Amino acid sequence: MVIDLRSDTLTLPTREMKEAMMMASLGDDVFGEDPTVRQLEGKLAGIFGMEAGLFCPSGTMTNQIAIRLHTRPQTEVICHKNSHIYLYEGGGIMSNSHASVKLLEGEFGKLEAEAIRRAINPDDDHAPETALVSLENTMNKGGGSVYLLEEIRPIRQLCKETGLKLHLDGARIFNALIHSGERAYDWGKMFDTISICLSKGLGCPVGSVLLGSHQDIKRARKIRKALGGGMRQAGMLAAAGIYALDHHVSRLEEDHERALEIARIMEQIPNVKRTLPVATNIVIAQLEKISPESFLEKLAEKNIRAVKFGLDQIRMVTHLDIDDRHLETMEERLSNWKMTL
Amino acid sequence: MVIDLRSDTLTLPTREMKEAMMMASLGDDVFGEDPTVRQLEGKLAGIFGMEAGLFCPSGTMTNQIAIRLHTRPQTEVICHKNSHIYLYEGGGIMSNSHASVKLLEGEFGKLEAEAIRRAINPDDDHAPETALVSLENTMNKGGGSVYLLEEIRPIRQLCKETGLKLHLDGARIFNALIHSGERAYDWGKMFDTISICLSKGLGCPVGSVLLGSHQDIKRARKIRKALGGGMRQAGMLAAAGIYALDHHVSRLEEDHERALEIARIMEQIPNVKRTLPVATNIVIAQLEKISPESFLEKLAEKNIRAVKFGLDQIRMVTHLDIDDRHLETMEERLSNWKMTL
Amino acid sequence: MVIDLRSDTLTLPTREMKEAMMMASLGDDVFGEDPTVRQLEGKLAGIFGMEAGLFCPSGTMTNQIAIRLHTRPQTEVICHKNSHIYLYEGGGIMSNSHASVKLLEGEFGKLEAEAIRRAINPDDDHAPETALVSLENTMNKGGGSVYLLEEIRPIRQLCKETGLKLHLDGARIFNALIHSGERAYDWGKMFDTISICLSKGLGCPVGSVLLGSHQDIKRARKIRKALGGGMRQAGMLAAAGIYALDHHVSRLEEDHERALEIARIMEQIPNVKRTLPVATNIVIAQLEKISPESFLEKLAEKNIRAVKFGLDQIRMVTHLDIDDRHLETMEERLSNWKMTL
Amino acid sequence: MVIDLRSDTLTLPTREMKEAMMMASLGDDVFGEDPTVRQLEGKLAGIFGMEAGLFCPSGTMTNQIAIRLHTRPQTEVICHKNSHIYLYEGGGIMSNSHASVKLLEGEFGKLEAEAIRRAINPDDDHAPETALVSLENTMNKGGGSVYLLEEIRPIRQLCKETGLKLHLDGARIFNALIHSGERAYDWGKMFDTISICLSKGLGCPVGSVLLGSHQDIKRARKIRKALGGGMRQAGMLAAAGIYALDHHVSRLEEDHERALEIARIMEQIPNVKRTLPVATNIVIAQLEKISPESFLEKLAEKNIRAVKFGLDQIRMVTHLDIDDRHLETMEERLSNWKMTL
Repeated sequence: MVIDLRSDTLTLPTREMKEAMMMASLGDDVFGEDPTVRQLEGKLAGIFGMEAGLFCPSGTMTNQIAIRLHTRPQTEVICHKNSHIYLYEGGGIMSNSHASVKLLEGEFGKLEAEAIRRAINPDDDHAPETALVSLENTMNKGGGSVYLLEEIRPIRQLCKETGLKLHLDGARIFNALIHSGERAYDWGKMFDTISICLSKGLGCPVGSVLLGSHQDIKRARKIRKALGGGMRQAGMLAAAGIYALDHHVSRLEEDHERALEIARIMEQIPNVKRTLPVATNIVIAQLEKISPESFLEKLAEKNIRAVKFGLDQIRMVTHLDIDDRHLETMEERLSNWKMTL
Repeated sequence: MVIDLRSDTLTLPTREMKEAMMMASLGDDVFGEDPTVRQLEGKLAGIFGMEAGLFCPSGTMTNQIAIRLHTRPQTEVICHKNSHIYLYEGGGIMSNSHASVKLLEGEFGKLEAEAIRRAINPDDDHAPETALVSLENTMNKGGGSVYLLEEIRPIRQLCKETGLKLHLDGARIFNALIHSGERAYDWGKMFDTISICLSKGLGCPVGSVLLGSHQDIKRARKIRKALGGGMRQAGMLAAAGIYALDHHVSRLEEDHERALEIARIMEQIPNVKRTLPVATNIVIAQLEKISPESFLEKLAEKNIRAVKFGLDQIRMVTHLDIDDRHLETMEERLSNWKMTL
Repeated sequence: MVIDLRSDTLTLPTREMKEAMMMASLGDDVFGEDPTVRQLEGKLAGIFGMEAGLFCPSGTMTNQIAIRLHTRPQTEVICHKNSHIYLYEGGGIMSNSHASVKLLEGEFGKLEAEAIRRAINPDDDHAPETALVSLENTMNKGGGSVYLLEEIRPIRQLCKETGLKLHLDGARIFNALIHSGERAYDWGKMFDTISICLSKGLGCPVGSVLLGSHQDIKRARKIRKALGGGMRQAGMLAAAGIYALDHHVSRLEEDHERALEIARIMEQIPNVKRTLPVATNIVIAQLEKISPESFLEKLAEKNIRAVKFGLDQIRMVTHLDIDDRHLETMEERLSNWKMTL
Repeated sequence: MVIDLRSDTLTLPTREMKEAMMMASLGDDVFGEDPTVRQLEGKLAGIFGMEAGLFCPSGTMTNQIAIRLHTRPQTEVICHKNSHIYLYEGGGIMSNSHASVKLLEGEFGKLEAEAIRRAINPDDDHAPETALVSLENTMNKGGGSVYLLEEIRPIRQLCKETGLKLHLDGARIFNALIHSGERAYDWGKMFDTISICLSKGLGCPVGSVLLGSHQDIKRARKIRKALGGGMRQAGMLAAAGIYALDHHVSRLEEDHERALEIARIMEQIPNVKRTLPVATNIVIAQLEKISPESFLEKLAEKNIRAVKFGLDQIRMVTHLDIDDRHLETMEERLSNWKMTL
């Protein structure tokens, strides 16, 4: 049995999800005629109390569309230096939107209003005009860390005062909400746009949804077209999303518990210096006296898979296809790990 | 019964195709681990005798990736002024690749080597450097017109001599090959990249494949990532493509015959001045003494749907979901059309 | 004596102009402290009744800044297919502003409101959003043709109705005004931005000025910075501009008369089929039975220089450094031209 | 007497420099026919032992052209987080070249090979491809700090091994060479392109030169055209550059000595915590118990001008228009400064 903890994007659709996909009413979504896509977009918009939604092939696309919506060439995006939009989207901020980045530091990948305020460029010809703040919740590189609403409110207030747009990369927003117990509806009020991924913890094969105002989503459709994200009978994919929203949200709690369990297991390994605090489904283990490459190799020999996550870290993620048996097996396999020097 | 001839993108997946989708072996294609996606990419590359393929959410994306591959800012793309890449991809040539366009004329949307040669910019600081020629086969705006290999050869030769890249927007390339009887394999030798759409005549819900060299496809993956086209368990969609290649290619002949039949029916309508020569599955009717809007409205009253296609034209497209009963009904409904003045 | 009619950009600064440059009060214009630059910007803004001006190193830069001001990625610029901004600015529309182009035809390089109206894209995801109309007066490729105010008014009206911006590439606007007798002040009311070149007919060594609203010019400064057009003690160059506005405008009339004279001379040459109507300082001669290259070579043997201007045309331009003696000599040298077959 | 230490860009051309400008042989540099521009380009290329040069209106433009030369969309530039190309060029890296940035730390604004090596992105679809390393010497934000050749060599070696291009923003390279005693010729061997500013310490009114290979400079001309940097009779400006190279280089030593003197004066002021080590003509004073704004205001009351340079710093720069009398006066005026609490 392979225990594959590399990512929560690895999940395979369940039989029930596939059946929902088969039964979906379809149409051509480029003509705006796919009823299931519209249902998914409306359902998510409703949950977050936002005006409209747009289904896209990936979370990278929903983020990139939001960035193009809120910027123009010679403006600047403020984000954490470890944010997904900067590190893992192929340089899209610059190549798609021609916008500059101001990269901030912040514990566990989170930003504070005061740091953002200091990072806003002065009205000076030499500097790009600050246009957008982008947050990520949960924060992948922060170890699945979670923002609370009370941390968002001063940032929202700052953006309002200074005319900045505020985007949320909510690839794992449901993990955050399950952890905090906060309501999606309250989060929807805080942001101009929210990107929500269906193919991570929710277990869908493909798709993300961008939420925003009617006006922004209308322009977002145009941007999606040029990026090549217009899909035809996308309702089959959307049906998986609807199924997941109905059946796979509350169970994220289990993933979080298992992540805690994995952190406990990992900390017993001699070469693991410590794990970052676990809030959701991500475990980041800091290593000592071994390189991530060697550590991952030793894991792989035991049929356990994880990914390198920086110069001395590895990441493990729990998901729909990891259950208690995997954890038991994992503990067994790791129990007699010898320190590597 | 609605007779919907607006586009061949409207087709719904058949029961058999859906079953193939359900049975597909899946993996995370962003990790390069979806076996069905790899199978589809390899299958199409094999058919065209090209080195590698890349599955994408749309034909717009495969075209846009090819354009970014072959250009850089301040270079120029030569294409027909009615080509899809210029007219219908949201300005992507400029917003995605920052490249300029040289728009040529040519009968039925087709280009000739001599016109291309004259359009190559001189080596002069004032002009962008010509980098890419892009052809479209069949040519949508040319009425589904077909290039023959013998028309391509001198263009290929010119590109070779002058160092230009040559891309084929083959959204409907199988319609062209069915018409001409030419071999995909011979076409693959002519182009640096070919974009092939699965969700038009082939009847798949979603997807296109870009074919090219190993090196180009490796870079194409990187471009796809930034455009947001990386999908996870995309094998479900790819399975539809494999099914379509096995079962829906030779039947395109039927679509072509029905298109001819539709042209015959349309020419009997008083307000139809003439139809463009029908080669494949597209019928373009030129109107007189009526606007396309009014004409389409009258058609809609008879439950027949088509689209406006320029200032005095409409377009009708046959496809998998149009059979002989639709044609009979259509002829009946249109038989007593009164001239509008 | 070389008779160099290749361009009116070739003029050397006169002794008086150079003295004005030497005497100029200077400061650092990047800090906004060069008094002579401010004087020039204010003077031109005043002449055209516009709010503000911005001094730049070239007419290409003033045009390119205007285009970036009025567009954003995935919008479209409507211009004549022979306009300078499309043909001769290195693909800058696309590489600087990521905007698309809709290229129109029109006699002598001029556009009409009705053609523009038809070229505005529908509100459709497939098409870039039309944002800007750009005219050129005089129109270089149209043979120095001139727009009259009455031709501009319906275009202004159309732009107002449809929310489009209207830019004037006025590289040779003073030639146009001298020809038509119209007032700069009335032209200023018609456009959102006007680009005016000082180094063509006006005879300055370097520089162009962009005119527009306070708000646009403030943003234009920021764009100029990123393009690299911020210059330090630019007052020396601006002083030449002020001198030229005071001394070199009304004399353009002479250039126009000499251009007519040149057209008369050229039409006597057997290989010249005809010249385009001469309105200002540009003469375009259409050739027959000889290539432009061979024709220019024969001219060069007689110490007369011109440039190729399309497949069967050459261009000659009169300017500050061409006087009546040049014309007499030119006629003499060309008097015994033998037809080339 | 105002003592204006805000920047070395503030210098006014001397009488002798102006005379050189007046006497310059001129031509149209867009046609490549200005002999003085060619002379300047050749002279600087010769000094640095590089193949060719290109005269441009500003150092921002020479830097931006170099960046576009060495990158394409979805590639990445490695530079110090305080480098001019990132902070002060209007977001041009992204808006002109669509390239991403990897921002490094390093004492006094300088980078080390090992930090660069770690910053090179892996060959992974998620990350932009590292393409260019850009250094700045002297480093403005590092307090005019100087790289030595022995610090450059390992970086050059790394770039060679890994296929990266290496650019030098040498806006103040002559200050660096005067300080280190190293030869320009040896520096030219280290870089693919070098940008040299004439309007800082060298005292010219306008202009910078980009040095590189014949091939790169040919492409650079094309990029300059699209950015709007092609100037006509630019020889007047180039003549100032030639004069400055002949007369204003060795005297930079004086600026450096005066900067040291200023640092000494500043350190006697109670609110100045310390000054950064002074190597060239830049003095950065760190303040305590006072904001830069209040401090600058107090200086301004004494007719001394400087600029804010970060949250608790101010910058002073010596230059051609600052002599010993200014320093004596400055010391007098500042002698009785009272601590502000």
